[in-house]
Amino acid sequence: MLCCDRRMEIHGKNQIGGIFSAAGRRTFQGFDPRLGQAIEPAFSEVTDEEIERALQMAADTFPAFRDASHEAVSGLLEATADELVGLGDSLIERAMQESGLPKDRLTGERGRTVNQLRMFAQLVAEGSYLDARIDTALPERQPLPRPDIRRMLIPIGPVVVFAASNFPLAFSVAGGDTASALAARCPVVVKTHPAHPGTSELAAGAIARAIQKAGLPDGIFSMVHSTESAAAIALVHHPQTKAVAFTGSLRAGRAIFDAASRRPDPIPAFVEMGSVNPVFILPGALQPPVDNLARGLFNSVTLGVGQLCTCPGLIIAGDSDGFRDLRQKLTALFQSATPGTMLYPGILRNYEESATHAASIAGVRQTRSTAEAEAGRTEAVPVLLDTDARTWADNPDLVHEIFGPASMIVRCHSDADRMRVAGALEGTLTASVFGTPDDLLRYRELIALLETKAGRLIFNGFPTGVEVSPAMHHGGPWPATADPKFTSVGTAAILRFLRPICFQNMPQAALPVELQDGNPRGIWRMTNGRLGRE
Amino acid sequence: MLCCDRRMEIHGKNQIGGIFSAAGRRTFQGFDPRLGQAIEPAFSEVTDEEIERALQMAADTFPAFRDASHEAVSGLLEATADELVGLGDSLIERAMQESGLPKDRLTGERGRTVNQLRMFAQLVAEGSYLDARIDTALPERQPLPRPDIRRMLIPIGPVVVFAASNFPLAFSVAGGDTASALAARCPVVVKTHPAHPGTSELAAGAIARAIQKAGLPDGIFSMVHSTESAAAIALVHHPQTKAVAFTGSLRAGRAIFDAASRRPDPIPAFVEMGSVNPVFILPGALQPPVDNLARGLFNSVTLGVGQLCTCPGLIIAGDSDGFRDLRQKLTALFQSATPGTMLYPGILRNYEESATHAASIAGVRQTRSTAEAEAGRTEAVPVLLDTDARTWADNPDLVHEIFGPASMIVRCHSDADRMRVAGALEGTLTASVFGTPDDLLRYRELIALLETKAGRLIFNGFPTGVEVSPAMHHGGPWPATADPKFTSVGTAAILRFLRPICFQNMPQAALPVELQDGNPRGIWRMTNGRLGRE
Repeated sequence: MLCCDRRMEIHGKNQIGGIFSAAGRRTFQGFDPRLGQAIEPAFSEVTDEEIERALQMAADTFPAFRDASHEAVSGLLEATADELVGLGDSLIERAMQESGLPKDRLTGERGRTVNQLRMFAQLVAEGSYLDARIDTALPERQPLPRPDIRRMLIPIGPVVVFAASNFPLAFSVAGGDTASALAARCPVVVKTHPAHPGTSELAAGAIARAIQKAGLPDGIFSMVHSTESAAAIALVHHPQTKAVAFTGSLRAGRAIFDAASRRPDPIPAFVEMGSVNPVFILPGALQPPVDNLARGLFNSVTLGVGQLCTCPGLIIAGDSDGFRDLRQKLTALFQSATPGTMLYPGILRNYEESATHAASIAGVRQTRSTAEAEAGRTEAVPVLLDTDARTWADNPDLVHEIFGPASMIVRCHSDADRMRVAGALEGTLTASVFGTPDDLLRYRELIALLETKAGRLIFNGFPTGVEVSPAMHHGGPWPATADPKFTSVGTAAILRFLRPICFQNMPQAALPVELQDGNPRGIWRMTNGRLGRE
Repeated sequence: MLCCDRRMEIHGKNQIGGIFSAAGRRTFQGFDPRLGQAIEPAFSEVTDEEIERALQMAADTFPAFRDASHEAVSGLLEATADELVGLGDSLIERAMQESGLPKDRLTGERGRTVNQLRMFAQLVAEGSYLDARIDTALPERQPLPRPDIRRMLIPIGPVVVFAASNFPLAFSVAGGDTASALAARCPVVVKTHPAHPGTSELAAGAIARAIQKAGLPDGIFSMVHSTESAAAIALVHHPQTKAVAFTGSLRAGRAIFDAASRRPDPIPAFVEMGSVNPVFILPGALQPPVDNLARGLFNSVTLGVGQLCTCPGLIIAGDSDGFRDLRQKLTALFQSATPGTMLYPGILRNYEESATHAASIAGVRQTRSTAEAEAGRTEAVPVLLDTDARTWADNPDLVHEIFGPASMIVRCHSDADRMRVAGALEGTLTASVFGTPDDLLRYRELIALLETKAGRLIFNGFPTGVEVSPAMHHGGPWPATADPKFTSVGTAAILRFLRPICFQNMPQAALPVELQDGNPRGIWRMTNGRLGRE
């Protein structure tokens, strides 16, 4: 059966090139974390043969996808957005059920997902992202003539996308990785996250219908379900896979990166993993009142029950009256915090273990909410940890992210302490600095050090809330991501799935239109080193 | 002693941040391949302590290098070019002695090296490569205001460069990798190639003097000698190393890539390895006379005794009268070919073993020059191999590059044969196609397939001779390089050593000048999605 039929229904199957497939015998179910119970129907675990089929179809349809008009590719992305919107409340309701996230958040996330698809549609239509460069021939040059050389970006080939659990729409089946890979004209095979298989199936159906509307080959998109790491590795190892995108834990990300790097022909693995997102509170920000700062930090830590990649996990400040005031206010907020439902029991278990372990280290104090988590409802209690710079720097276990609604205050007794903490940080998606403009000058050395650690530096703002725009960089040195040169959010995310090719002395008719004389598409190009649209 | 003194003298030492260092007890010597004898002086093998010192100095001076003015960085590159020129014949003579390459070639290569340095100096001065992007704040936006977001590329950190043997100037100590890394403001530690240690020392001295002229910290450049793979791995594993560049064999490149990928914090390894550079002769190019084609192919295969990354190792053509004519003429050229001196005995040994092994495969014929190699002069005899598409595709041993003056004719009996050969190709730096514009249309499917395999597609031209320009792409899918997104030749080579950083709501005074309002440097920037220089 075509997966385009009966779009609201959930069949529990894989979707291989637009066709439902359930060749395997093993199944798993979604889980309602608020009710603590499994959700119907059962989902079919992908088999090796289905993986083979999905990637072979991706490879077979790649030439046609590469040759498709930019109108068709933009149309695909716009149609996907329309289809997602067309799913209406059924998509939001299933996502709520599977993730425990509230309706407002998921409605907002759908908006983000849809805007992201449309943003890439515009990018494709505009065309300048192809970084076209032309060096015209110099037949008279001595000692040797220069040939005509023209270069632009082309798609890298079939991409395997691993959906993340924490954004069941925006970083999942029809999320930013899929949108940017399809915009690059790379066929996509998505491995769903088992925490929201039904939401995934609905989104995959939306993409399949959009492909048909756009008149593109069905094989450019497949979606497979699995709870097994062997299937994930098989997807990475498949000879037709040319790149991988992943957002999740350090452990899983490292396994995927290693699988990609250890292939006979290694492929790039754009894995986004852990990030502590330190917040440095400089003296200028510790002037009373600190209520808004305390409230803002608390909100940022507990937003989405702490399940955001940019959750601020460290709060670093010098000891002072203002600091003690801030700490007291934060403590009060955490004490009265409401427990929140996490995405699934495994993520809650990891959170509790990491937070408990950190709190057990000598020199670390913890504040937990006085409210208790309700049994069987996958609830996490926000935790505020508190230590000093020396304890933090001396305990490698404290350096890593605790994924969930926890943050750790690190008290510094000197500028040297602050530099020591900054120096011991691993790579991170963001670093935030609160203070006055004068603080930025006074702590110039600290800022310079943070620039080597972070992908985004924020002044007087919280790291959560990642703008989807051309200037956004959502990436950072290891372990934030495996390749700090690339972002997974914003228009530059498309660059992960493109590579240059160079044509030498090629006749006009054999060149892609973007490299032809006269610039028929009117895109920005660099001709003999000069940018222009002529 | 400062390595800036007595610039023509060769001391046989490592150069750590501008200071000679010979802490180890083991030494090795350069070797004159034409005379078959070692050259004075002995060179000191680097020790672990010296590696530590070099990379610690690189890390310590990185903040100051990052903050240096673009004038200082351009000045460094220009001064390096001047210093290389200033070495005059002593540099060329030492390189001739160590490499066996002729004077004209090395003089031309010095010109290329110098031009490359000046090209990066201009790129740095111009500034648009920083890919600056600004999304201005939208404080009134609903439901949430948009912050001010500004993004540009910054240097990745200390880079280890492994010098290649086959371009003792242009891909060695002061070659394209070092030039592009320094242009990116990344401190560089070069591991010399043991085949030309004296040439390396002279070039390193030129860089050290240029650093002093430019008023930059000495620690941004070090040069170390080693013949041991353990030292190479230690350089890749060092925690301060943030990226690696390498050009050489698949075996060594893979070892470096693996070392980089298996670190606790993996780093990018831009390794360029083997490439067969197939040449497809389509029917239109097989019309008589084929003399120029045969002569051009022969010259391209034997240029530099076949020791170029783009040496055409496969010649694929359909069986026809024209084909037989071409084969006969090529055969005659190879039969009367003059043996040439290779760079060092190890590379000659590998060449002979690979060529002999390929020739021993059933279905492969070989033509060797009737001239004999002279004993003790490291001479290679050019070899033309000849087989059919089926034999080639059925023997995995034939798929790999034979590094040296050899090429293999692959006879096709059908279009399907041609597609089969193209399909079995590994990634390659270049693919060349000879024929008429009509052939390009008729063989559209073949061209499309070659685009997925090659970094550069050449029409009616030979792959050797790589233009250094903005549109050049010298890279390709594995095993041509480990990351097909990046080039090691041309201005885009700088992108290997840069990564984005994003500033959110940062006060003007704390922003890099390239991101400040008013665009003080007048570089191209993307503001709210639109390119401009305002």
